[in-house]
Parts: sequence; structure tokens; C-alpha cells
Amino acid sequence: MDKTKIVVDTKGGDNGAGVLVDGAAEALSKHPEINFILTGDSEALKSECGARGIPADRIEIIEAPEEITNYDSPATAEFNKPASSMLIGLRALAEDPDAVGMITSGNTGVALVGAMRELTDEAKTRPALAAVLPAQTGAFTCVVDIGATIDCNPPLLVHFAHIGSDFMRRMYGIESPRVGLLSNGTEPTKGNRLVKESHKLLADDAQINFIGNVEGNGALSGSCDVLVCDGFDGNQVLKVTEGTATRIITDIMKYAHRKSSPEIKELGMHLMGLYDIGSLGGGIILGLKKPVIKIRGNAGGKAVVSTSGMLLNMAQNKTVYEGESSTIS
Amino acid sequence: MDKTKIVVDTKGGDNGAGVLVDGAAEALSKHPEINFILTGDSEALKSECGARGIPADRIEIIEAPEEITNYDSPATAEFNKPASSMLIGLRALAEDPDAVGMITSGNTGVALVGAMRELTDEAKTRPALAAVLPAQTGAFTCVVDIGATIDCNPPLLVHFAHIGSDFMRRMYGIESPRVGLLSNGTEPTKGNRLVKESHKLLADDAQINFIGNVEGNGALSGSCDVLVCDGFDGNQVLKVTEGTATRIITDIMKYAHRKSSPEIKELGMHLMGLYDIGSLGGGIILGLKKPVIKIRGNAGGKAVVSTSGMLLNMAQNKTVYEGESSTIS
Repeated sequence: MDKTKIVVDTKGGDNGAGVLVDGAAEALSKHPEINFILTGDSEALKSECGARGIPADRIEIIEAPEEITNYDSPATAEFNKPASSMLIGLRALAEDPDAVGMITSGNTGVALVGAMRELTDEAKTRPALAAVLPAQTGAFTCVVDIGATIDCNPPLLVHFAHIGSDFMRRMYGIESPRVGLLSNGTEPTKGNRLVKESHKLLADDAQINFIGNVEGNGALSGSCDVLVCDGFDGNQVLKVTEGTATRIITDIMKYAHRKSSPEIKELGMHLMGLYDIGSLGGGIILGLKKPVIKIRGNAGGKAVVSTSGMLLNMAQNKTVYEGESSTIS
Repeated sequence: MDKTKIVVDTKGGDNGAGVLVDGAAEALSKHPEINFILTGDSEALKSECGARGIPADRIEIIEAPEEITNYDSPATAEFNKPASSMLIGLRALAEDPDAVGMITSGNTGVALVGAMRELTDEAKTRPALAAVLPAQTGAFTCVVDIGATIDCNPPLLVHFAHIGSDFMRRMYGIESPRVGLLSNGTEPTKGNRLVKESHKLLADDAQINFIGNVEGNGALSGSCDVLVCDGFDGNQVLKVTEGTATRIITDIMKYAHRKSSPEIKELGMHLMGLYDIGSLGGGIILGLKKPVIKIRGNAGGKAVVSTSGMLLNMAQNKTVYEGESSTIS
């Protein structure tokens, strides 16, 4: 391939296309091997890119007049808004052999259903939404699923273990990723019906390096590389972590203000960088031919920079999108 | 009644009876209206109490030679260890009209099943394990259930809403406690099967001040007084909050050390006090004739002091243990 192309859906975010183009400009100067495909209002995008001095040969702009909002239904968006920047972007990703992944800040449900239609690999695996979160050890933990499938069955959790392991193996070079199962106790007998049954299947699967149940207070301790859970519980792990971190950091900033302490303010800013979960890549749709990264609606350019680097890394390491992901056992 | 008696099971904790007697001694000097009933090794307890100068007329000691451990099964403990300090304590609580509640650091499952046998009220309601956690606003949020019932059905979640509301009304004088339902989105259509069905029942229940779904990042924002969820998810809220807080505070203490900053160390200690969830009363078994508080296995005397105050407050406000708790609708 000539260039590694990354598709960016420039509509659907809370802050307009400008901040996403800012991020693209920064990513282009950081990674000479990347080009971008931007979908959205082509006239506006041309002028945004021009204003930032982005070389024309490193950007392709595809006109997409419609926008997917949070009110669009995943089931009907394809028919109601075929010319939306998200769906046109997914199509470009599927059809351009040089495109390796896509970044969108739009409606997650529509992105998931659209991606399933455009990018499901031959094995027809069910995609999952994963989050890559910083663990206490400094390493990363892939939490899968964080909300794509809310009601799961045991074979689906085993499937998540496979695609999560595959991702960590290729993204971070971990040969045998340790897989933990989120539960309410470490003993194999602890858990709801889903977890207890999944525990048995995971323990019996020779291709998975299963370390057993992991409790909520150990979810991001670094004891596992992949944390498997249903979409409802993964969503709780993600949001409770975020809520607690935000709250403590807010307390610290107030305390800094009260004590007029620049030293404590600096600590607060440091922690804010460390725990700004919204900027850490958002959710990654795994189990597709090519990965799609969902960044937050309110994400800024920083998220485009970090996720572009991630997609580049995944492409260079020939990661999950090459259709080698496991099938539902 | 002459005195408000509180039963303390002095076995089953990680640190021995001594630390619990320390807590009892402190609670006695703080609250002249309390007396304690201690169950455990009577000889050892007598000498522990003597060593702390506890007046003999404020302590009753009941001999209980056996100890419930985490390896005991809730189903068989009654038959295997009838003379355990936990089961003898529950019986004393049920039989002594002056006893208003019990504190135990032992096996939660055995405590639950034992309490159901000894203390289920006439309406035969199913008890729940609740946690009272500090919300961002400075108020408290009652999370119910945190692990007593792992697989729940919608009527049971409605029941949790009733007993949680009842508790907050009487414990904190909140006339119409706001009830939130833990979900993966605020819209009524968000949630797993259990949550979606429970949402409808809660919305239709005129006795519940239902504010709708609450996401994980808002669980402890203070937007609701009672957060309803199944035991599996409540356990996640509790433990993920604890894990995240512990982790950030550890980071802060390391940072203080690296920067040799007494100011930041002081902040770390302040946060440690604020977020020491283990000491905040642990779990409360609600929906019984008299409440039983489960403190952590590694809890110190501080937990006995704070939970004694709680039980006293509940008794003075004629709280749930009087058998007025709602039935499963």
C-alpha cells in the first residue's frame, strides 16, 4: 500500500468538525505514514484543512451531507440517512484497500450496526465494543464488552475473550494475554448465572490463558490483560471508574483552590491527564475486518491524535482486522 | 427499654476480638445510651474488657466457642456450627427485646441466611444487603443490593426500592427519597432485560419517587438517595469505586513521597479518610425485623464505632427493623 489511510467521520461530534481537523493536522505531522479520508461537508472541510496548511495530497475529502445524531435508530439509519458522514465513512473504509480503520464520535449503536453490515468478516463473528484502559501497573487492560451487547450468553463471553486476546497480542505484543472474568468474588462459584457458566467454558478453552474471576476492585489492577464481561457490566466498570476519578480530581482542585496551593493544583492537572478516560481512545469495535474507533461526542483533537496512532500501530502489527479473529465457540 | 443494646460478633474478623473491643470501648464512651452484648470466647473477652476499663454493667458477654469462617457454607453452617459467635449473636438479637441490631465481620452469606431464619419479619420479605456511600454532594446514597441476591427479577428490584427508601426516610429523615435505577444509559429504553422491565414497574409504583435510570458515572453523584441494582452490579459499583479511589490515593502518596511534599501527603491522608469505603459501615442487611451490619473482615475498631452510631440512630428513629418494610409487590 502507498499510505496508511485513516477515515475520520467529521460529523456527529459535539464540537463541530474543526477540532477533529485540528487533531488530524497534528497526527499528520506526527506520523508521516498516515493520510486521512475525511467525510462531511466538503466545502467546509476544504477550508478547514486549508486554514491549517494541510497538504492536499495527504487528505481526501468525501462529501456527506447528512449527519447521524443520537436520536437516530441503529435499525433505520441506513434507510433514513444513507448519505450520512458515518455510513459513507464506513463504506469508504470497507472499499478502500489502503484504509486501515475509522474514527467517529457519532452514535455508537449506528456505528456498530453499520460496521457489522460493511465490515463483518467471513466468519460472521459478532463484533464487540472494547475499551483499552490504563491499569495500575502502567500496562493496559482491554475491557470487553463495554456496551455493544447488553444481554450476553456464555459462548459470547468466550468469544469476547478470544477477540480481546487477539487484540492485546497484536497491539501490545503480549504472547499469551491473561484473561479475567468480571465477577463478585474470585472463587469460581461466585457470579451470576452468566458468569458461572462462562467460567467453566473459559477454563476449558485451551486457547485462552484464563486466570479466573476478577472483582471490581481489581478490574484495573493489572492482574489481567483482558477483562471479559457483558456489555452492561463493562459499561459500569468504565463509567464508575470515570465517575470516581472525576470526583476525586474535582475534590483535589477545590482543595488546591482553598489552600491556594500551586503544588496541589499541579498534582490535580497531572491526575487529570492520567485519568482522562474520555481521551484514551474511547471504544474500539473489535471482531471486524477493520477496526472502528468510537471517540466521545465531546472529544477534542487529542483523541484523534491518540486513536490515529493506535490504528496505525494495529495496522503495522497486522491486527484483528485481517479477518483472523476467532469465531463464536 | 432500659438501654439500647447492640450485639457484636467478636469472631470471624481478620484481626481478632481485641480491635472490636477497642471499638466497643470507644462507642460506649461516645454514646451513654448504648450497652453491648459481645459473643465469642467469654474468658478472653472478659479480660479484654477489663484491660480497657469497660464497666461490667455496660457489657454482656455470651460464650460462643465456634467461629464461622469464609469456608463455611450458608446452607450448612446452622447444623455444623450452632455454637458459633455469629449464630449465637443473631439469636440473642432476635430474643432480647432491648437489642436493636448486630455488628459482624464474619461471612456475609452465613450472616444473611442466619438473619433470614432468626429475624425475617411476618411479611416474609426477602432481605437485601445495602451499602451507604458518601455522594459527591456530601449526602449519602444507599446502594441496594450489593451482593445478597446475585440473580434478581424485576419485582425484587422494586422491593429493593421500597426497603431502600424506607431506610433513607428513617435514617436521614428524607421524606421522599429519590430512587434511581442503575443502567447503561439514562433513557428508559437503555438497560438489560432486567433493568428495562424493572424501569416500567418502578415508574408505575406511586409509592416510589422514581427519577429514572442512572449511569455508573452518576451512581454516587448525589442525584439519587437510593440506587437500585441487582447484587452483581451493586457489587461492581461498590468495588470499582473502592478500587479506583484506592488507586488514585496510592498514586498521590507516591507523588508526595517523590516530591517530598508534606502538603500533598496531608491531602492524601484527607482523601484516605474520605474514601475509606471499608470503614463506612460496610453492608447493612435491610428488610429484617432488626438490622444486621456486616463490616469488613479487616475492619478495625473505627468501624464498630461508626456502625454503632448508625444502629443507635436507626433505633431512635424507629427504622425498618420494626417490621414495617414493604412486601414484594
